[in-house]
Amino acid sequence: MTGPDAPYEVHEIANFTLECGETLRPARVAYQTYGTLNDDKSNAIVYPTWYSGRHWDNEWLIGRGMALDPDRWFIIVPNMLGNGLSSSPSNTPPPWDRARFPRVSVRDNVASQYRLVTEVFGIETLPLVLGWSMGAGQSFQWAVSHPEMVQRILPFCGSARTAPHNRVFLEGVKAALTADCAFEGGWYSPELLPVTGLRAAARVYAGWGYSQAFYWDEVWRELGYTSLEDFLVGFWEGFFLDDRDPDNLLTMLDTWWHGDVGTTPGFSSTEEALASIRARAIVMPAEKDLYFPPEDEEWEVSHMPNAELRVIPGVWGHFAGAGQNPADTAVIDAAVAELLSADPGK
Amino acid sequence: MTGPDAPYEVHEIANFTLECGETLRPARVAYQTYGTLNDDKSNAIVYPTWYSGRHWDNEWLIGRGMALDPDRWFIIVPNMLGNGLSSSPSNTPPPWDRARFPRVSVRDNVASQYRLVTEVFGIETLPLVLGWSMGAGQSFQWAVSHPEMVQRILPFCGSARTAPHNRVFLEGVKAALTADCAFEGGWYSPELLPVTGLRAAARVYAGWGYSQAFYWDEVWRELGYTSLEDFLVGFWEGFFLDDRDPDNLLTMLDTWWHGDVGTTPGFSSTEEALASIRARAIVMPAEKDLYFPPEDEEWEVSHMPNAELRVIPGVWGHFAGAGQNPADTAVIDAAVAELLSADPGK
Repeated sequence: MTGPDAPYEVHEIANFTLECGETLRPARVAYQTYGTLNDDKSNAIVYPTWYSGRHWDNEWLIGRGMALDPDRWFIIVPNMLGNGLSSSPSNTPPPWDRARFPRVSVRDNVASQYRLVTEVFGIETLPLVLGWSMGAGQSFQWAVSHPEMVQRILPFCGSARTAPHNRVFLEGVKAALTADCAFEGGWYSPELLPVTGLRAAARVYAGWGYSQAFYWDEVWRELGYTSLEDFLVGFWEGFFLDDRDPDNLLTMLDTWWHGDVGTTPGFSSTEEALASIRARAIVMPAEKDLYFPPEDEEWEVSHMPNAELRVIPGVWGHFAGAGQNPADTAVIDAAVAELLSADPGK
Repeated sequence: MTGPDAPYEVHEIANFTLECGETLRPARVAYQTYGTLNDDKSNAIVYPTWYSGRHWDNEWLIGRGMALDPDRWFIIVPNMLGNGLSSSPSNTPPPWDRARFPRVSVRDNVASQYRLVTEVFGIETLPLVLGWSMGAGQSFQWAVSHPEMVQRILPFCGSARTAPHNRVFLEGVKAALTADCAFEGGWYSPELLPVTGLRAAARVYAGWGYSQAFYWDEVWRELGYTSLEDFLVGFWEGFFLDDRDPDNLLTMLDTWWHGDVGTTPGFSSTEEALASIRARAIVMPAEKDLYFPPEDEEWEVSHMPNAELRVIPGVWGHFAGAGQNPADTAVIDAAVAELLSADPGK
């Protein structure tokens, strides 16, 4: 069984001290698995979630006949801290609830996932870590933090370091969300969400998520929408109203904003951290991604010893990696298959 | 004398009926002139303003030794309706004030400027109409509405029709501005502006105004800012707090959103209106403009009989046309000189 209604597991980590110095008591890492771990524990893949995504939102890339075939691989999808299923502002009891939920880093997420993978499953080798957007950022971080463990990574539409312009984009989303007085500094009533701010954030996001050409060509029609406004309300506002808690969104936004493998202890720069990656990598930006543009990934790949840049062509922009467009899905799936059949990194 | 403190003129049009059907009684068109109209009235250039710009914001492209030399040309800079100097929500008396200020179209602006140029100055020929951004849109409209009068146009970083993605960008700015409860549906007290919404709109705008590469390369340092946050507060928030009235901003935003020469009476499509333009044109998008991307202008030029596409290279994005970067200014100034020395359109 898959989808939002399928049962899933939660790994509790009794005392999980975050990089910021505060401790989740406990941290809860919600996760779903697909397939069966083999006897020598050599077939596990980690596929982290993205900004506000839940484990079931990754399922479009998993299935029989696809590269991520659960008949062959054991795919673990850990939910990001802050996404509402793992420890988050919305589900942590006082006093660390809501606006007081501590700051979470990309490395905190990877550390929580490492605990899950090793403590629950005893896994020592990961043939692949992959993910979209913030999931791509976690993939890079996995490869930097655990080079002995991660054999391959396939980050798509994401980066090892959040670029300055990407941060400016996030500032706009954050400012729109929090401009609503009903936000109340994060202490809104759960029954009275700042829906004006959520809808404003959605409209800001709308311009960034897909490319100029996507809108010019009215490609939203392929998703079943009947006008631009129908798409803005139906898809974008609907997206932000679909159980997206504002404090959760801000926690993940902060994680995103500060993402940078170069701040990993032991490294003095992003370049140095990228150069340390031993995993074989196919790095897949989308041709017209407006906040993770291909040139940023080109720069990152140029510093990685064992990586190939492979651009996802087309007009879907960042959402080329969301599983909405069959052509993009085919390109990503083919790359996953190729990478999994290639020799691992050294 | 130039600049914000220089005296300027206002042309009053007693009863000015807008396309929406409502009438400004009177409409006021504030304008500044540079140079002297010659005896045969053959040296007049119209240079309209842009989104929230005032006439003095256009002065960077005017000067001795430049193409727009006031010793040779008579340059008229009319302020857009809604910009706070010409008739606007902020300066129109009740009952058409503030949130009740009527909807204004690009054609209304051009009509008001036509009245100014013909009634005040008796001008029958315009060697050139040019402008940045919304000023570019007005330049296209001038050429469509008055083909017998406009000999040349030089629209830079703007379009004859606001593209769908551009509209989505505007939706984000509008949603952020109006999410602030202090906006009060447009009936905020003039002493109690929705500054949170203005600052949010500024942060949304920040990601669009300059390119990804501009931020990656920290080119804001050339403008005197010392960090990304320093630039976001100092330039962007400062920009939106510099006497920018929210209702004025929304009036101009609505004008922008609906801009399309194809809706001019007598035409059945944008293509047809573009094809009707007799003026010689150099159309100058900026290489990395995120909301007026060069491919949009390429499409428009392909439908114009007498036009050349000339891309402004570099990383400044939309603000290549703002007069902040000497290299971009030189490119635009050279194009103006070349166009003015070329034969007019037929």
